[in-house]
Amino acid sequence: MKALRLLQARSFSHTYSSCRGNSVLSQEPSGPKMKTAIPGPLSKQYMNDLEKTQNSLSTIFVLDVEKSIGNYSVDVDGNIMLDVYEQIASLPLGYNHPSIQKVFQNPENLSQLVNRPALGVHPTPQFIKQINQTLLPIAPKGLEYVQPMMCGSCSNENAFKAICIWHANKNRDGKAFTEEELKSSLYNQAPGCPTVSIMSFEGGFHGRTFGALSCTHSKAIHKLDIPSFDWPIAPFPRYKYPLEENQRENQKEDERCLARIEELFHEYKSKQNPVVGVVVEPIQSEGGDYHGSATFFQRLQKLIKKNNAALLIDEVQTGLGATGKFWAHEHFNLPESPDLVSFSKKFQTGGYFAKSEFQPKQPYRIFNTWMGEPAKMLVLDAILKTVKQENLIENTKKTGDVLLNGLKSLNQKYPQLFYNIRGLGTFCAFDMPNASVRDKFLVQMRNAGIQMGACGDVAVRFRPALIFAEKHANIVLDKMNEVAKKF
Amino acid sequence: MKALRLLQARSFSHTYSSCRGNSVLSQEPSGPKMKTAIPGPLSKQYMNDLEKTQNSLSTIFVLDVEKSIGNYSVDVDGNIMLDVYEQIASLPLGYNHPSIQKVFQNPENLSQLVNRPALGVHPTPQFIKQINQTLLPIAPKGLEYVQPMMCGSCSNENAFKAICIWHANKNRDGKAFTEEELKSSLYNQAPGCPTVSIMSFEGGFHGRTFGALSCTHSKAIHKLDIPSFDWPIAPFPRYKYPLEENQRENQKEDERCLARIEELFHEYKSKQNPVVGVVVEPIQSEGGDYHGSATFFQRLQKLIKKNNAALLIDEVQTGLGATGKFWAHEHFNLPESPDLVSFSKKFQTGGYFAKSEFQPKQPYRIFNTWMGEPAKMLVLDAILKTVKQENLIENTKKTGDVLLNGLKSLNQKYPQLFYNIRGLGTFCAFDMPNASVRDKFLVQMRNAGIQMGACGDVAVRFRPALIFAEKHANIVLDKMNEVAKKF
Repeated sequence: MKALRLLQARSFSHTYSSCRGNSVLSQEPSGPKMKTAIPGPLSKQYMNDLEKTQNSLSTIFVLDVEKSIGNYSVDVDGNIMLDVYEQIASLPLGYNHPSIQKVFQNPENLSQLVNRPALGVHPTPQFIKQINQTLLPIAPKGLEYVQPMMCGSCSNENAFKAICIWHANKNRDGKAFTEEELKSSLYNQAPGCPTVSIMSFEGGFHGRTFGALSCTHSKAIHKLDIPSFDWPIAPFPRYKYPLEENQRENQKEDERCLARIEELFHEYKSKQNPVVGVVVEPIQSEGGDYHGSATFFQRLQKLIKKNNAALLIDEVQTGLGATGKFWAHEHFNLPESPDLVSFSKKFQTGGYFAKSEFQPKQPYRIFNTWMGEPAKMLVLDAILKTVKQENLIENTKKTGDVLLNGLKSLNQKYPQLFYNIRGLGTFCAFDMPNASVRDKFLVQMRNAGIQMGACGDVAVRFRPALIFAEKHANIVLDKMNEVAKKF
Repeated sequence: MKALRLLQARSFSHTYSSCRGNSVLSQEPSGPKMKTAIPGPLSKQYMNDLEKTQNSLSTIFVLDVEKSIGNYSVDVDGNIMLDVYEQIASLPLGYNHPSIQKVFQNPENLSQLVNRPALGVHPTPQFIKQINQTLLPIAPKGLEYVQPMMCGSCSNENAFKAICIWHANKNRDGKAFTEEELKSSLYNQAPGCPTVSIMSFEGGFHGRTFGALSCTHSKAIHKLDIPSFDWPIAPFPRYKYPLEENQRENQKEDERCLARIEELFHEYKSKQNPVVGVVVEPIQSEGGDYHGSATFFQRLQKLIKKNNAALLIDEVQTGLGATGKFWAHEHFNLPESPDLVSFSKKFQTGGYFAKSEFQPKQPYRIFNTWMGEPAKMLVLDAILKTVKQENLIENTKKTGDVLLNGLKSLNQKYPQLFYNIRGLGTFCAFDMPNASVRDKFLVQMRNAGIQMGACGDVAVRFRPALIFAEKHANIVLDKMNEVAKKF
C-alpha cells in the first residue's frame, strides 16, 4: 500500500512537463486498489452538493481527473479502478496521456486554444491544415467530404439534413427553388419543408436532440413525453450465440429484418413520407451490443440503393479503432462505401464524412456558429499520431482476442451468469440473466475495482481505451471470476 | 506603417507569458490598416484549398488567430480590421485576452483540459465548483437550476425537452408511466411520444438541429428541404422608428401580435397539438435585429401563463452583457422570472437556466455523453471575472450610448442610407434600402477596415466584444461616414 502511494505520488505529480514519450502505461499503478465502497463518502458528499442544482441520479462516483492515469480512473476517495468504460467510450488514450498534455503545454498552440473562431465565416490556416492532414487521412474509403461538428447528436442531425438536401436536389434536377418552396419553408410547411423520413432500427441509439431522438429506440426513458417524427423503425438482427452453432437461425433472422425493411420502404412511400436515408450503427451499442452480420449489412446497402435512399453509418461509439479496425464498418466488406459516416466520442469532436454529392451546393445550409473547434482538432491530431506510433489498433485487436477468449471461458465456467459472448476487438459484451442480476454484478465489480458499463436490458459492455493491454484484460477476467464465484 | 509593424511585432509576439493584467487594449493597434481588398490573395489561396473538401462560400476571410488582438482581427494577408462582428457575436473579450491565455498557461488546469469526462456519470469536484461558483452566480433571478450543454442548438433542444417533460409531468399528476406509454415511446408514437408543440416567432432563430430548426424562421435557405414539426409560428412586432414618434402604431403592432399568439394557442389546442412552451429571443438577432417592447414581453408572459405553457427566453446571442445588462430580458421588467433561459456563444459553452420544476425527476432524460465541458467552464470563469473586474457591462452601456447616438447622427446625415436605428448597449443595428445595397456597403466597410455583419433582409448588426470602447465606436462611425459619402 505504501509502495503504491509512493508510485502514485511520483506518477501523479504536477510536474507534467517531466512526462515525455509514451509513458502512460509505465505510470499506471499495478492494479486496482479499493479503499471504500462506490460511491465513497467523499463522492457522496460531492453528489449531495451537486443534487442541489442538478439531477445527479446518474452519477456513479466523483472523478479525480488529476490522479486518474492511463487505464485507471481514481475517484475523490482515492479508490483506484481499472476503467473499461472510459467516460462512456470516449477516451481513446485513457487518462492524462502525455501526448494530449503536450497539446496544452505547447505555446505554439495557445492562440488556437484561446480564440474559438466561427469557422464557417473565418476559418484559420491551422484548421484548413487540420481538415487536410488530420481528418481526411482517416476518411472511410470513398468519402472525400468531411463536415466537422461538435458532438454525436449534432453530427447525426446534420448528416440527416445533408441526406434530405441531397434527396430534394435529385428531385429538383437542377431547377431553382420555387417561390412556394421559399415561402412555405419559413412556416414549416411543404413543399419547402417536405414530409420525408429517415429509417432507423429497434434498439438503435443516435442521440437525444429531436431529429436524432426520432431515430433512437434503445430505452423508453430517453423518449417519453418528447414529440417525435413519424419515421419508420425496422427490426435489427437479434442473433443466437455462439454464432457458429446457430448459422441457419441467424440467417433467417437476417431475412426477417431485411423483409421488414423492404416493407417499410414501401409503406412509407405509399403514405407520402418516403424514406430518404437509413441510419444504422455497425454494432448497436447503447441498445445492448447487438451485432449484424456482414451479409446483413451488404444486403441492407443493396436494398437502400434500390430504394434511392442514402446509407448513414453512425460510428460515434464504434469509430477510432476499438473494434480492431479504424471504422467498425470495415468489418463488413461492403461492395461500395456507405454514403455517410458520422463520428464523435473518442474523436473529442464530431462530424461526418460523406460522398461529395452530399455536400450542399449553397452556403449556410449545413452551418452553425462554431462548425467544430480547432482546439479539439489539435487533441484529435495528437490522438491519431499516438494510435499510429504505438500501434494501438493492432494492440486492441490482440487484447480483444484475449478478452473474448477469456469471456468464452467464463461462459463455460458460469453458463447461467455470462452468455451471448460477442465482440470485435475490445468492443466486447455479454448478457446476464436479467437487469437486476446485471446491475448487482456491476456494483460488485466496481467495488472490486473494475469500472464497467451496462447497455440494453441485460448486457455488460466493454469500452476500454485503445491502450488497454493483455495484462489489463487478465485483471478484469480474474475479477469477474472472483465476483462470479460468490454470486 | 513601419511604426505599426513595430507595434505589431511587439504586441503580437509569442511571449504570451509576458502579457500580464488587463492589457489587451494596450496591445491593440491604433486603428485598422488594410493592405489588400478582402479576401486578399493569401485568403483566396487558403479558400481554394478549403473548397476542395468544404463548401467555403460562406467564408469571408481566413483569420490569423495569432496576430488578432483585442477588438482587431487580422487576416492571413496582414489586413488589420476593427471587428464589430466578433466571430458571430461569440467573443466577449476579443482576441487573445490575457485572462483567457492564463487559463491554458496555468499548469493546475492541465488535467481538466486533457481529460474530458462524461459529466453525467463522473462529475469532478472542479465541475461541481464551476456549477456553484461560475454558473449559479449569473443565474437569472428565480432560476435555481442550470443544465450545462455544448452549443446553442442543443441548449434549446434540451430546454424544449425539459418543457415537454414538465408539461407531461403536470398532466400525469404523480402517476407512473403506463405500459402503453413505455411501449409506444420506443416507436415514436403517442401516448409515449405525444403530439405537443413549441410556439416560435416569424423571423426567429433558435438553431439548426431538427427541433431548434422547427422554431427557426429567419431565412428560407436554413430550412429548405428539411422536414419540420407542425409547430405554431406567431408574428413578432415590427416597429416603426424612431419609437418615440410612432408610439400609437407600435402599440397596435403589439396588439396584433398578441392577438394572433392567443389565437394560435386555441388553434393548436383544438387540433390536438397543444402549445406547451413558447421560445422567444429578447431581440430577434439573426432575423434582423427586431425588438419587442417591455410591454409586449410582459403581456406575452401573462398570455403564456394563462395557457399553462412555459416561457423559454433564448439568450444565446443576447446574453452576457452586450445589451448593457447581463441578460437582455432584464430590460423588460417582467412581473416574474421567465421559466427557462438558454445561453451559448459568448459563454463558450451552452446550457439553460430554469425554475427547479423544470428539472426532470428521473435520470437520463436530459442527458448526453459530455453534458458540457470543464475546459470551457474554466474559460467562462475567466471571462466572467474579467467582465466584473474591468466593469465591462458598464463599458458596453456607455459605448452603446456613443454608438447609438452616432448612428442617429448618421441617419440624419444619410436618411436614405441608414435608418431604423435601434439598439440596447452595443447590440445596435440599422436598416439599409435593400439587400444588395447593404451587401455592397458591408464589402466597402470591410475594405475600409471594419468587419461588420448582416442580419435579416436589409439590416446591419453590431456585435462587438464587451471591451469595445468609445474610441472604437468613433472609428466605426467615422468609417461609415467616409464610405457613405462615396455611396
